[in-house]
Amino acid sequence: MRPMEQNLQNTVLLLSRTPAALNALLRDLPETWTLRNEGEGTWNACEIVAHLIDAERTNWIPRARMILEHGEGQAFPSFDRGGHIRESQGKSLAQLLDEFARVRSQSLRELQALNLRPADLNKRGRHPALGVVTLSELLATWATHDLTHLHQISRVMAHQHREAVGPWSKFLGVLKCAGHSSP
Amino acid sequence: MRPMEQNLQNTVLLLSRTPAALNALLRDLPETWTLRNEGEGTWNACEIVAHLIDAERTNWIPRARMILEHGEGQAFPSFDRGGHIRESQGKSLAQLLDEFARVRSQSLRELQALNLRPADLNKRGRHPALGVVTLSELLATWATHDLTHLHQISRVMAHQHREAVGPWSKFLGVLKCAGHSSP
Repeated sequence: MRPMEQNLQNTVLLLSRTPAALNALLRDLPETWTLRNEGEGTWNACEIVAHLIDAERTNWIPRARMILEHGEGQAFPSFDRGGHIRESQGKSLAQLLDEFARVRSQSLRELQALNLRPADLNKRGRHPALGVVTLSELLATWATHDLTHLHQISRVMAHQHREAVGPWSKFLGVLKCAGHSSP
Repeated sequence: MRPMEQNLQNTVLLLSRTPAALNALLRDLPETWTLRNEGEGTWNACEIVAHLIDAERTNWIPRARMILEHGEGQAFPSFDRGGHIRESQGKSLAQLLDEFARVRSQSLRELQALNLRPADLNKRGRHPALGVVTLSELLATWATHDLTHLHQISRVMAHQHREAVGPWSKFLGVLKCAGHSSP
């Protein structure tokens, strides 16, 4: 298998696991862990799951279709980073975790139905800020986006124990991570 | 409930979830994700799980007992950061995940059997590098240590897709995290 096809296979294997991993980590945890953030303007674990749902609806498969249908001719619509607010309103974390599992399964079925051939992975689209990107890059980014938010969730949760660990904070790398979300 | 007792309850709830979360994320993933590290001298996901097993055997409950039995009079033995090598030799990731679940369950049964009272949480021990620490801080650190390694695993895995994501790397915070493990 060539590197890009290998990447696609690895991407799908990871994408299929993320909902169960987040479910095992977060479901029924007390709100201390799941509804507290890192300070004003930051997200809690619940909002991060809502963001993953929003990205699933508006970002990955819709952009893959745009690459296949329009190529570089038409830039992707900008991703609305506030979309998680729409997703999370009135929903419990348990409902969001269920919803994420549902929309992720649906995305993976849609990806399968695209029946991508190796040559498709080289196809190009246009990102509104990044310029020309390939389908292969989009799909690899989908999996890495899961990991960036797992990285963020572990950091946001660790932050809630920042005082409780006392002098051990200097040995806990996650407490030194300030986040890296600005470009 | 007072803050320290609340912290203890939250700690136990998180500790009980970590093995299932890592299992859901990692079991049966291809070695591209689980056996590659971030470069010489760094750990892959498999070694991180082995480190969690090692810490379970030699660190958390043994140190809690030292605090209860010896107080500040006797420093904890230093933690051997190479102990994961002993744990991981000849074992598959699936075996390590099973072992982590087993030793974590056992630790939580031992913690329960200590039957800690609120006053115990203030008891003090001596860390060989950090000096005086409390039982409450030790237990909070146990949960935060899980999160520091979940943070690390997501970063190590994301690193494997660093090239594949192309220009998106500038939007993926996890790819900008250089780790924070040195004191």
